[in-house]
Amino acid sequence: MDHENKRKKKLSEDDYVNGVLEGNRTILAQTITLIESNSSAHMNSAQNVLTRLLPHSGRSIRIGITGVPGAGKSSLIESFGTYLCEQGHKVAVLTIDPSSTITKGSILGDKTRMDSLSKNPNAFIRPSASGGSLGGIARKTRESMLVCEAAGYDVILIETVGVGQSEVQVRSMVDFFLLVMLTGAGDELQGIKKGIMELADSIVINKADGQNKLKAKAAKAEFNRILHLLQPSTPGWSSKAYTASALLGEGIEEIWNEINAFKNLTTESGYFSLRRQKQMIDWMYNMVFEQLKLSFMNHESVKLNLKSIESSIVNGELTATSAANYLLSIFESNRKEPL
Amino acid sequence: MDHENKRKKKLSEDDYVNGVLEGNRTILAQTITLIESNSSAHMNSAQNVLTRLLPHSGRSIRIGITGVPGAGKSSLIESFGTYLCEQGHKVAVLTIDPSSTITKGSILGDKTRMDSLSKNPNAFIRPSASGGSLGGIARKTRESMLVCEAAGYDVILIETVGVGQSEVQVRSMVDFFLLVMLTGAGDELQGIKKGIMELADSIVINKADGQNKLKAKAAKAEFNRILHLLQPSTPGWSSKAYTASALLGEGIEEIWNEINAFKNLTTESGYFSLRRQKQMIDWMYNMVFEQLKLSFMNHESVKLNLKSIESSIVNGELTATSAANYLLSIFESNRKEPL
Repeated sequence: MDHENKRKKKLSEDDYVNGVLEGNRTILAQTITLIESNSSAHMNSAQNVLTRLLPHSGRSIRIGITGVPGAGKSSLIESFGTYLCEQGHKVAVLTIDPSSTITKGSILGDKTRMDSLSKNPNAFIRPSASGGSLGGIARKTRESMLVCEAAGYDVILIETVGVGQSEVQVRSMVDFFLLVMLTGAGDELQGIKKGIMELADSIVINKADGQNKLKAKAAKAEFNRILHLLQPSTPGWSSKAYTASALLGEGIEEIWNEINAFKNLTTESGYFSLRRQKQMIDWMYNMVFEQLKLSFMNHESVKLNLKSIESSIVNGELTATSAANYLLSIFESNRKEPL
Repeated sequence: MDHENKRKKKLSEDDYVNGVLEGNRTILAQTITLIESNSSAHMNSAQNVLTRLLPHSGRSIRIGITGVPGAGKSSLIESFGTYLCEQGHKVAVLTIDPSSTITKGSILGDKTRMDSLSKNPNAFIRPSASGGSLGGIARKTRESMLVCEAAGYDVILIETVGVGQSEVQVRSMVDFFLLVMLTGAGDELQGIKKGIMELADSIVINKADGQNKLKAKAAKAEFNRILHLLQPSTPGWSSKAYTASALLGEGIEEIWNEINAFKNLTTESGYFSLRRQKQMIDWMYNMVFEQLKLSFMNHESVKLNLKSIESSIVNGELTATSAANYLLSIFESNRKEPL
């Protein structure tokens, strides 16, 4: 009965804040649900709670993990996360899944994909927030990350499926960015997005086991060659390729060593905190500019004119500059709707 | 005396339009000067003139040319442009030089760098518009391009020095994008910007002469290898590397053959005109969004608050979301300044 009552009781902001700071997993999950809510009342509460948690956030290493479908990201995270828990770390796994903006649901069975990690008391796994734009999902993930940090998680893994704009979003919220690849570099590369290798602080060629082992070694050399030609994702750091087998647990410790070396180097150079500060500020501006765009695109009179203006441009009747000025004057002149 | 009077006479919009359509080089240059003017009276005239010229624009191939400093872009353009004039083409060379936004002046001696081409009656060379933001310079270059087309120039070469965001701007206004490189791929690549190779429809390794010839061949193979791994800049087109010597005039005809093959293929697939339409529409939206950003960043009350808001974010006193909402409410509430 008591338990029932507890579950039904609406939490106060104090309840959220104290629960998270005590590391209460149930309240941590509820706080993230609050953050994910699209109701404006919840948004206000969420921001109040977050503001109070902010001073307790930040004491973690934030790691982004991406890769082509089938590269074995989940099994790698399962293996890596379990290793970290064994080392005494508390690990939070968050997902950015842009496909959930389309299907209104997140990757099927996120937790079941990481079966043993999800049962580990030192791990917290949270599937992607669903619904809304990628920008909205990214905001929710960023804020969930801060809450997990306040709850004492010192390693944050943010997984994204390697499609569309989500890698850039993840790169902009993490310290270290890991790209998971498969053997057969040449062929596999065709599947990954433009510019994605240049975001990576490290590439792990997964499934380097059994008959794949030799091919993985060759792929590693190939990726190192390419990485050498690209500009580093993090100033002062040389991104390198490694092999690993999530299946055998091989190469997992090496990933962690690499990340620690990265953290030491960037902390010493000052880039670690510099990047975090820049990420926060950039994020704020991005939200502002996204909102300005949205208010323009959703403005009734602008919407009424867009199609005909676009055709006039395509048909060579109107210069792009005149069209832009005209639309801005419409936006400006009957501007009743709030941003 | 007559000549003096003529020079001092203020041109009417009719004068500009007719002069350009007659291919009058002096009036073409004056029209571009009108477009480059930042005075609002001139802007209106410029848009009127442009709107009348629009139906006569578009009958050209638009080629962007970029490369690291020292790669010999100017001598290649000189050689390529002269070849095209000999083939009966009319060639306009425009420059986007983002450094001119800093120095308030364009590359020293643009014309003298292309000495023989600048004297060719079928070539028109115009240095970069100076002053203003890169976005402003890009607008001026786009519009100058349209004017050159209306004046009968059927090959437009847009040169940019390979720094900053200018390549992306140029890619967004041309049909074909050419990257000029030097031998010694591995070392040279370190100097070029992230993602730039993925913009290229073709790479030319210049200075493939004398003792460089063998190294250039090796570089060509190396670049082809990398290009094969990257996604093509233009759907359906495989970007390839070539060698050329602007000095000896070797490989110049091959570049033109490549561009013609590209034009045929993309015209047949429909992508040629599709890209142009998309470029115009995107450009319009970019101008709108840039203007919205600018009006926010220049808003007096916003400006007064920005620094302290940024510190509050960095110090963990304010969430980025709250900060964004607060700044937007300031922007919205006392909004007297026109966009």
